[in-house]
Amino acid sequence: MSAAQSLAVVPLINRKKAGDPLTAEEIRFLCDGYLAGEIPDYQMSAFLMAVVWRGMTEAETLALTRAMVASGEELDWSGLGRPTVDKHSTGGVGDKTSVVLVPLMAAAGAAFVKMSGRGLGHTGGTLDKLESIPGFTVELGVDEMRAQVERIGCALVGQSPRLVPADGVLYALRDVTGTVESVPLIASSIMSKKLAAGAESIVLDVKWGAGAFMTELEAARELAEAMVRIGNGAGRRTRAVLSPMEEPLGRAVGNALEIREAIETLHGRGPDDLWQLTLELGTHLLLLAGLADDAGDARARLVALRDSGAAAEKLAELVAAQGGDAAVVADPGLLVRAPYVRPLALEADGERWVEGLDARTVGDAALALGAGRKKKGDPVDPAVGVVVLARIGDRVAPGEPLAEIHARDEAAWEAAARALRAAYRLSPTLVARPDAAYQVVG
Amino acid sequence: MSAAQSLAVVPLINRKKAGDPLTAEEIRFLCDGYLAGEIPDYQMSAFLMAVVWRGMTEAETLALTRAMVASGEELDWSGLGRPTVDKHSTGGVGDKTSVVLVPLMAAAGAAFVKMSGRGLGHTGGTLDKLESIPGFTVELGVDEMRAQVERIGCALVGQSPRLVPADGVLYALRDVTGTVESVPLIASSIMSKKLAAGAESIVLDVKWGAGAFMTELEAARELAEAMVRIGNGAGRRTRAVLSPMEEPLGRAVGNALEIREAIETLHGRGPDDLWQLTLELGTHLLLLAGLADDAGDARARLVALRDSGAAAEKLAELVAAQGGDAAVVADPGLLVRAPYVRPLALEADGERWVEGLDARTVGDAALALGAGRKKKGDPVDPAVGVVVLARIGDRVAPGEPLAEIHARDEAAWEAAARALRAAYRLSPTLVARPDAAYQVVG
Repeated sequence: MSAAQSLAVVPLINRKKAGDPLTAEEIRFLCDGYLAGEIPDYQMSAFLMAVVWRGMTEAETLALTRAMVASGEELDWSGLGRPTVDKHSTGGVGDKTSVVLVPLMAAAGAAFVKMSGRGLGHTGGTLDKLESIPGFTVELGVDEMRAQVERIGCALVGQSPRLVPADGVLYALRDVTGTVESVPLIASSIMSKKLAAGAESIVLDVKWGAGAFMTELEAARELAEAMVRIGNGAGRRTRAVLSPMEEPLGRAVGNALEIREAIETLHGRGPDDLWQLTLELGTHLLLLAGLADDAGDARARLVALRDSGAAAEKLAELVAAQGGDAAVVADPGLLVRAPYVRPLALEADGERWVEGLDARTVGDAALALGAGRKKKGDPVDPAVGVVVLARIGDRVAPGEPLAEIHARDEAAWEAAARALRAAYRLSPTLVARPDAAYQVVG
Repeated sequence: MSAAQSLAVVPLINRKKAGDPLTAEEIRFLCDGYLAGEIPDYQMSAFLMAVVWRGMTEAETLALTRAMVASGEELDWSGLGRPTVDKHSTGGVGDKTSVVLVPLMAAAGAAFVKMSGRGLGHTGGTLDKLESIPGFTVELGVDEMRAQVERIGCALVGQSPRLVPADGVLYALRDVTGTVESVPLIASSIMSKKLAAGAESIVLDVKWGAGAFMTELEAARELAEAMVRIGNGAGRRTRAVLSPMEEPLGRAVGNALEIREAIETLHGRGPDDLWQLTLELGTHLLLLAGLADDAGDARARLVALRDSGAAAEKLAELVAAQGGDAAVVADPGLLVRAPYVRPLALEADGERWVEGLDARTVGDAALALGAGRKKKGDPVDPAVGVVVLARIGDRVAPGEPLAEIHARDEAAWEAAARALRAAYRLSPTLVARPDAAYQVVG
């Protein structure tokens, strides 16, 4: 680094430390200087900690997001002839919504390129789930992506490293300096990738509750509002849905198991919570994209596209376009299956109601089975996982199954069973199933 | 760095960020790991910013100070047969107190090794001032220092780089990461050097006001309290004096000019504020060291040691012991003198009272003359400087001198005169001279 550059950084750190906002030019200077290697790690980490402390104004957060976007390529979908849409979820155990929503929206006339990451955690990311389809590839070049979207309206691909390189570099520093948890830093990281991906309309699924990254509704709302402000500030039609999460979304947790459930949902046979969330997100996207007049119209069209088989047919087109075996869409029984599948039965002296089902602990069970990654680069087992049979509000008699565990062998089954038993909170008296109460921001 | 080490640091940063205190072992781990190069700069700077944010408990601050002390050598004065004393000042324009206090305390029977830095700023540090005495050296080895203290009871030397190497390393990082201003970090930096220097009794001169590093009394008190707690916590008898500072201390600002004023003060002909502060600090040291029964006794002894010439004689011994020309003590006129010395006269239509005299701006004038350093390694001019003739509360008639400027040449004189005129705030009506109201902490 040059001494002059380094000297110029200290007053900026001091101002952020004092709670004074920086200008867009100053934030761009920090971001560009850091990426160019002219501002050292130790100054950037001190600045980031000051941001965790003092936060950022709306203008600062937008400026940081824009500086990050400018660090790499930006996709341009002009001339496509269809409205472009995108979606992001803050993530949760069992969340396979993209696999349902993407073909559904494409069937409705939108162009939807969904970029996903591999993720680190209980189960694989969306990419790992998709790769449980034989032959399916998530690695498409920009030209291939565009050709596919022109032809069939959608793609489900890996996050391009040429988009927002700043995000990877900054995240790596945040990860080792205790500066991950910060609304403006999280919001700008997520939104920079959405902006660079180029869609005109963006819906954000921000989960909250015991099973989500953010346990408190107010924290989720704060993040949602920050992201919506960035999106709108950058000229994108942006809306967020706050969705409660305690138990896993849907019943399946595990890569091929989740793909199967997503397919079943497109056939009208999936769990209601997954379909309701898909409908909610899809409704907002149709409205933002100008593809529906009102919410009732939007919902009716999405239900019709499911019931007619058009959405499932679109998923089959997408799978085929990306080299996968499209036959799995008609017959998900073709997907890989674990060798040791046994139910976990209720052991009790009488009937029980499921009062709580901790999504994170269900995730731990899936991780113990090999469905997820403990560290970067670990392989994931596509076949294994958990299918939750008894969910919050369900009644179970002694000996009836709580869940079905898909394992490699008996030892793995036992380890997952121990985790699953701990995930269930059971009551001897009736428990009502909670409503999914979505709240909309933006 | 090892990845394991780096991983272990993140939870510590996160806890500090959340405002949870760390254990002494954890703070030692951070300090040692950083010095050993096993914890990277970027983690340390994030941690330091979290400390600026959340502060440190008394136990944490003591643990940090101890970890810093343990990074280097510690001086051991056992077997010396006299009580050991030390002093630190947070610094101010015109502060030559050490040059008066050290021989005075040695004459009173204490052992006083005062280590000083070169400093960066308006005038040189104490070392630079001392080096204006022909032949005087501030570089003594540990054995030389001990032999000198055994013989004459005092030494005025440079800070040994073998004491508290952690301080230099940490300060360099703080300087470029906006993490300088933090009470626990400042207090542990100062006190680590005092603890390593080994004295049993320590007095801290913490200045506050428009001319000081800390402008607010409450901020000065907070720092004083933190330092006293560290000293007492480490088993040293420690007390702090909060001394107000608006105009320079004494009249002289500049290296040889300040030595001359210190000598005059030991002869009983110095400015009263300098002598009063010396008496205040010396009284506390005599009491802490058990060399006086009460404050009245202590003050009387110090006045007697000045009036008898014993303290001046002790300074002459010190100068001779460190290779300097001891004749300057009897005749400070032997000190180097600038070639262009002219008074700055009041230009006004009538008499004026000095309402304000900004110490920092007086310092700027001295810096413009060449008395201080703009950057590390710059030479200082021993001869140049300013002697303030009109101080707050003084009446000045038109044409009478406000100050005497000691310059290399007329151009330098003019530049300094411009700064000095800006330093004075004059009133056409009577202004009372403020009392020096010392407050004691500890």
